[in-house]
Order: sequence, then structure tokens, then C-alpha cells
Amino acid sequence: MPNLGLLTDYYELSMMQGYFLTNPDEEAVFDMFFRRQPFGGGFTILAGLDPLVDAIVDLHFTADEIDYLHSLGTFHREFLDYLRDFRFEGNVYAQEEGNIVFPNEPLVRIHGRLLQAQLLESLVLNYINFQSLIATKAARIVIASDGGAVLEFGLRRAHGQDGAISAARAAFIGGVAATSNVRAGKEYNIPVSGTMAHSWVMSFHTELESFEKYADIYPDNCILLVDTFDTLKSGIPNAIVVFKKLKQQGRKGFGVRLDSGDLEYLSKAARTMFDEAGLPEAKIYASNELDEWIINQIRRNGACIDAWGVGTKLVTADSDPALTGVYKISAKGVAGVFEPCIKISNNPEKTTNPGVKNVCRFYDSQKMMLADLVYLQEEEDVLSAVIGKKESLRFNHPNVDYAHFICAEYGATKKLLNPFIIDGERTVKARRLQDIQQHAKDAIAALHPTFKRLLNPHVYKVSISDGLKALKTKLIDACCQE
Amino acid sequence: MPNLGLLTDYYELSMMQGYFLTNPDEEAVFDMFFRRQPFGGGFTILAGLDPLVDAIVDLHFTADEIDYLHSLGTFHREFLDYLRDFRFEGNVYAQEEGNIVFPNEPLVRIHGRLLQAQLLESLVLNYINFQSLIATKAARIVIASDGGAVLEFGLRRAHGQDGAISAARAAFIGGVAATSNVRAGKEYNIPVSGTMAHSWVMSFHTELESFEKYADIYPDNCILLVDTFDTLKSGIPNAIVVFKKLKQQGRKGFGVRLDSGDLEYLSKAARTMFDEAGLPEAKIYASNELDEWIINQIRRNGACIDAWGVGTKLVTADSDPALTGVYKISAKGVAGVFEPCIKISNNPEKTTNPGVKNVCRFYDSQKMMLADLVYLQEEEDVLSAVIGKKESLRFNHPNVDYAHFICAEYGATKKLLNPFIIDGERTVKARRLQDIQQHAKDAIAALHPTFKRLLNPHVYKVSISDGLKALKTKLIDACCQE
Repeated sequence: MPNLGLLTDYYELSMMQGYFLTNPDEEAVFDMFFRRQPFGGGFTILAGLDPLVDAIVDLHFTADEIDYLHSLGTFHREFLDYLRDFRFEGNVYAQEEGNIVFPNEPLVRIHGRLLQAQLLESLVLNYINFQSLIATKAARIVIASDGGAVLEFGLRRAHGQDGAISAARAAFIGGVAATSNVRAGKEYNIPVSGTMAHSWVMSFHTELESFEKYADIYPDNCILLVDTFDTLKSGIPNAIVVFKKLKQQGRKGFGVRLDSGDLEYLSKAARTMFDEAGLPEAKIYASNELDEWIINQIRRNGACIDAWGVGTKLVTADSDPALTGVYKISAKGVAGVFEPCIKISNNPEKTTNPGVKNVCRFYDSQKMMLADLVYLQEEEDVLSAVIGKKESLRFNHPNVDYAHFICAEYGATKKLLNPFIIDGERTVKARRLQDIQQHAKDAIAALHPTFKRLLNPHVYKVSISDGLKALKTKLIDACCQE
Repeated sequence: MPNLGLLTDYYELSMMQGYFLTNPDEEAVFDMFFRRQPFGGGFTILAGLDPLVDAIVDLHFTADEIDYLHSLGTFHREFLDYLRDFRFEGNVYAQEEGNIVFPNEPLVRIHGRLLQAQLLESLVLNYINFQSLIATKAARIVIASDGGAVLEFGLRRAHGQDGAISAARAAFIGGVAATSNVRAGKEYNIPVSGTMAHSWVMSFHTELESFEKYADIYPDNCILLVDTFDTLKSGIPNAIVVFKKLKQQGRKGFGVRLDSGDLEYLSKAARTMFDEAGLPEAKIYASNELDEWIINQIRRNGACIDAWGVGTKLVTADSDPALTGVYKISAKGVAGVFEPCIKISNNPEKTTNPGVKNVCRFYDSQKMMLADLVYLQEEEDVLSAVIGKKESLRFNHPNVDYAHFICAEYGATKKLLNPFIIDGERTVKARRLQDIQQHAKDAIAALHPTFKRLLNPHVYKVSISDGLKALKTKLIDACCQE
């Protein structure tokens, strides 16, 4: 990984120098959270955490980078000397990668000297916003496919190299079975997949010759692109000729890819032709500007498609190409003693939750997710005692004064923010991507289907504790009296 | 730059091995082109070419990468040995970076052994699709700002690190004045820019103190964020206190950034307050989910904004996050003798233009762009003679048989595709990014304003020559008779 010291917004460095010159020992706590579910959906999958933790631990400035900053003419020599030896020395608490997460609860919490924690803002947001967005889009597509395999084919339309590679990583977390991106396959041990392009077919004298040559070379993984000339009149009949020979040889891994035309109509027709030819094992792949909406619709109409190649609209998160996560200061202090901060907005939803916080997730007796409670770290012992005795708890609406509910029956609970970096050192080993994918699968399974509807889903409740509500109200009142 | 050998779709490698085993000496010509203007606009700016040329010339496979491919179990030893020594040995012709380009004309044309040219597909598309998309979005925003400075602030919402860095590069080509992304600033010598976050203001006891401290440190570039508490009641009055002191010291580079609320209303009110306070030189920056539509609207309504910070919607190309460029074989042959290829589609717009082609751009006597003509390379001498004599030319519609026009009056002409790589070697030196930006500015200036309307623009004509039309018709007829 290249060094990422300069992968930051200029204002982080100008503020950092400002803190260095005015108040270098000030400490602060920042929360990273987002305010709105992407795609009009009911959930988001946290992704990007593990590479972010690596990047934070490794963060430094090379001599070359210091020279560049010096050349800008705005940075003092003392500050540049500080950067020369910079290492992040604070703590990072975060939710587990692959978790289902919701608006207005912290996903990542950073403690440290203000000037160090400030620097991380752009880096944290760049990793978490993008990868969580893509993992979520992938999960929606996988849900729509209802058991069909989803393959990520987006490299050619992705936003740069890393937009492709980290999209492949995130899409895998969200549940896709494989990627076409060979570099991502190597880097993250993701299965790689691919078939052929029209140029293969066009480079031979006939379609049949091109199919036969391909089958000779790849007899066990022979997926033929059948729409170069005419899918039903030429592509499928030629594929049947080839597949019959493969079947006689005892081969099983063959099929076709439909890449144009009406996929519902063509897949049903192709299925019938294969079945009538005695080739029920022939698989049908589909591609061509697919997304969760198209897949959901044609699958429900009975399209006979075994695997979905999804590219552009997955890796660009078409229709909602940014998760708008933010990084906000929630407390400041000296020597570990913090006073809470609040940012008040005319828009109540944008008023931040003050103080050092954690999130407790409550499950029902069937181990399905029930609701989340954001609470102050100082409430943790009391909260644990209440939960230990299975006593009922008050869940307050984060903005609306009178709205709350009493949570009286619940099963297991889980504290969501846990340490990943303490005093600048990684405390949790990186997990295998396959394990993160499995964690996400389990998390999605624990979410009631009403939250997973593509359109107009049930809204999962993220409430605030009595202590947090009292603090928030107090700070708002104090601010409004000023 | 890391090696990009594996930054490819798996099917490129499986086809490549197929060609290696069946027909290793076959040669081919591929065209990269796109079919639809992004954002409903009337033009696209070509970007991403220079880094693409570097990547192609450098393309190779490391021992580690060969081992990975071996581990997949589908690649033969002979083919892996071939990859071990792989270098691209063909030719790349392309339009100049910063050119205005249009659907259905080649932007890049690749000649080479089929197995080598095939490999480049994903790489060419990844670079050109994304950077051209962002350069175009940036140009639209710059046009909407009508002379105001546009600053690229997108790192936190961009698609990965490279999605941010290469977006900064492309946005600069499209005309933005600066980026917040320090790494992109260093890598491409783009001016860097930035102000402060709410956390700066919140880390001091009062807003005024935070402004005063900032002005002490940055007296010549003092842009204050004024919406932490209340823009008009607190932020602007405090800024006025600070700016008066700066003005007394003879400083000039001060202003505010508005980041929430109604930017038209607030900017007019702030302008009045500054002017009444004797601070006409105070600048007003605006940010907050801006795009060309919002900027166009409030600027026309008289918003008093000097600079626009545009992030998310620029770097994610919100509303149309992919340029859908494709890479299609147009000729195949042996030893430099090519026969043209065509891909026929039931959708006439998707039928490709066959043969080895170039594009000639015609200008009028005022040096404004008139129309483009795609022609066969073999027609070049005849075309040059006709143009030399300023004789009239027939411009044929690419799909509609009877549609054509006679171009009788024209001024200068320009051949658009020119060599960048010959026999695997770069033949044109990389240009400075500032020069590419200037080239794009000049190109945009030569495009009549009707093509630059944000909505429902005039459609620029890309026609085909008589020779190309005859070839296309012949191949379609031959194919339909089969």
C-alpha cells in the first residue's frame, strides 16, 4: 500500500498546524456516522474498516511529502518537523466490518490529540463511505437474485483503479460470489470469473468455430456468449452443438451468457431449447446493465437465469453514488478528561449527539435484531446491570422530545463499538475477507425481511439512552440561551 | 505507479490464452468509443489518456502475479511463460487529451497482435471512461459558474483513493481552479485549497476566538466557516470583526465559506453586511452538495458567490456515474493486412463502424467546430486532396440511409487520431496538466454555446464518409444474406 499521509484534504493540514501552534495538547473524540440510508433502502453494511485500520497505523509523511508541503509556503518549519516524525498515537473504536449499520449511530470513534484525530477525517470517510456503499448495493442485488449467483463485472466502468479494486472487495463482503477483476482476486483472495467477449466470436470465421475452439481449451468452464449474431437463431443452436459434445465427454461446467435483448424472454426460450436438447445442466448467465430492480422484476416473472453478471450499476452505486458519512467532534478535553461538544443545526436531524458514546444492539428471543440504543460511555456500567437483570429500558427518539418506547422483552445484547487501535497500535488482527462476508451474511439473516424490502422498507429504530438525551437537551438549552 | 498487469477482467486473460493456443499471430484493430453523452449534455471532454499511455507502455506481469495465475489452475505453462516476458508491442492512436469528443467516433484505436490488443480492453476503459466523465462534469460545473472559481472538494465521498486522485486530475482538466486533495496536488501539480471544518470552531471557547486564532496563523488566506452557530447572527458579524483588523494590517485575502442554509439568500445578506462594513474585498465561498444545476440556478438569481466548493456530486458524477465507453474489434488480419469486422445489432445505433478509421474535424471560418467526419484510413489521401481544394463533401448519417448533408463551406480541418505508441514505445511526451487544461479550455471555447446548454443541447453531427458508409452497407448486406 502506498503511503497515505497526503491523502487528505488541505484544510486538515491547515487546521492541524493551527492546533499545533495554538493548543497542541488538546484531546478530542470524533464520531464517524451517516445520516441517510442509501438507495432508499432499510440497511447499510459497514465495509472498508480493515484497510482503514492498516492505513491509520501506517500513516506517516515521507521526506518527499514534507518537501512538497514546504513548497506550498504556508507551513512553519516546526510543524513540518512534527510531521516528519508523525505517527497516530490515539485510539480507534469501531463496529465490526460486515455489521449492519444505521443512520446516526457511530460506526467509528476516534480518540486522540485533536491535531492527530483531525487529520484522519478524510481518510476515514474515503474508506468507509465508498466501501460501505458498495457492500450495501451488492447485498441488495444479492437479495434480489434470491439465491442466484451474483458476479461483479465492473472494472471497466469503475472510478479509477482503486474504485474497481476496493469495489470488488466491498461487493464480496456484500455477498457476491466472484469478481472479474483479477487484481482484486489476487489481493483479497476473491474467486475470479469471466467468460468471453464478442471479439472472441468475431475473431473466428464462424460463431460455431469460435465456440468449438473455446470448448477445446476450457471444457470444464465453458460459458459461451451467444448474442454476437442472433441469440435464439444462431447462438443457442451453436451452443447446443458444442454442449452435446462436452456432455458426451462427461463434462458438466457449460452454459451461455445472454448480454442483450430481453433477458426474461430469451432466458425462458433458451431454457426450453436446452431442456429439449437434453441439456438440463446447461447454465444461463445474464448481463447488461443489471441492477437490483431489473433482477428483482425479471426473476419474479420467472426468468430462467442461474447467475447474474453485474458491473456498472454495482461498482458505481448507480442512483445514489455516495454514502454521505461525516466525521464530527463529540468531545474535547485534556489528559483523558473530556467535555461533550454538540453541533446544533436549524435542521434537528443534523444536530449531533454529544459525548463519548457507544451503541448497544438488542436482539429478540429468536436472535433477530430488535433495536439499537446509543448511550454515553459513562452509562455503561448501569446499562450492563439493567441488561443483566433483563429489566425494561427506555428508548428515546433522537430528536423528537415526546417520542419513546419501553423495551421490556429482549434476548441477547451486543456492544457494537470495540477497540481496533489503542495508543497507535492495532489490537485486533485483520480477518479473512471470506470471514467478513460470512459475518455480513449472518447479520443480514438476523434482520427481519421487512427491513430488507428494496422499496419503502420498515425503518429500524436507533434510539438514545436517558443519559444521552439528558445531556443533549442540556447542551441545546445552554446554547440557545447564549 | 504500481504494475497494472492484473488490473484486467479475467476473460481478457482466458481469451488471450485462447488466442495464444489457437492463433497467436492474428492481428487486430480495436476502437474505443462511447455511445451516449453523459448528463444529458452536448459534449464530453477526453481525459485519462496520458496515464493510460504510461500504463500501457509499462504493462508487465511480475513473478508473483504469474504464480497467482498459475494457482488458478486454468492457465498453461507455455502461456504463463509468454506472460512472463510480456510487453505490449503494438500501436496506440488516440485523440488528444482535453479534446471535445462525441459519441460513435473513435477516441483511442489500438493495433497489435490480437492477444495483446485484447488484454488492453479493461485498462483502456477504466482510465478513459472515468476521467472523461469527471472532466466533463467539471466542465459543466465551470460553465454554470460563469467565471466564478470552482474548487474540487470530493475526497471524502470519492470512490476509493484513486477515485479521488484521478478525479482531481480529471476535474482540473475540465477547468476547476484547485483541489482539496493534497496528494493529487503533489502528484499533478494542481493548486491545493481549503478552509476549515466545524471542528476548528468548536474546539475553541467561542466562534470569535476560533476566527481570531485562524487569522493570526493565516492572515493572507483567511477563509472562515461561518455556519457553526448562526450564519447571519453570529458567523458574519464575528468575521467582520476579524476582517476589519486584517484590513487595518493591509491584508487582502479574506472571506467566508457558507456551508448550509439557503446559499442565495445568505450570500446576498452577507454581501450587504460586508459592503456596509466597508469590506467589499471580503470573498464569499459556498459549498454543500452543489452541482451544475444548483449553481446555475442561484447564480442566475444573483447569488453573491465568488467561489464554489464542489465535492460529492463532482467526483461521483452524480446522476450519471459512468461513461459507458466500449472497446470493439473493427478489423483483423495478418502481417498488417486487415479485413474489416462489424458487430451487427438489432438496435441500429449499436452496429459498429467497421475498418481502420480516423476522424476529421471541420471548423468554420470563425474557427468554431462545425462537424466531424469518421472515415477509413484508406480514404485519407483522397480526403486530403478534396480538403486541400476546399471542395464540398458528403457527410452521411451513421445509421439512417437517406440522411446526409453536403458540407460546402469550411475553414480549417484537423485529423483527430494520432500516434501515441508505436511498436510499444511512447512517441509523444507527456504534457503538463496545466497545458491539457488550457487545451480543453480552448476546445470548449471553439464549441458553439448551443452545444453547451446544460439541458437539451444542440446535437453535434458525427457523420461517416462515403467510403465508410459503402463498407458498412456491404458488410451488413453480406451478414444478413448468410
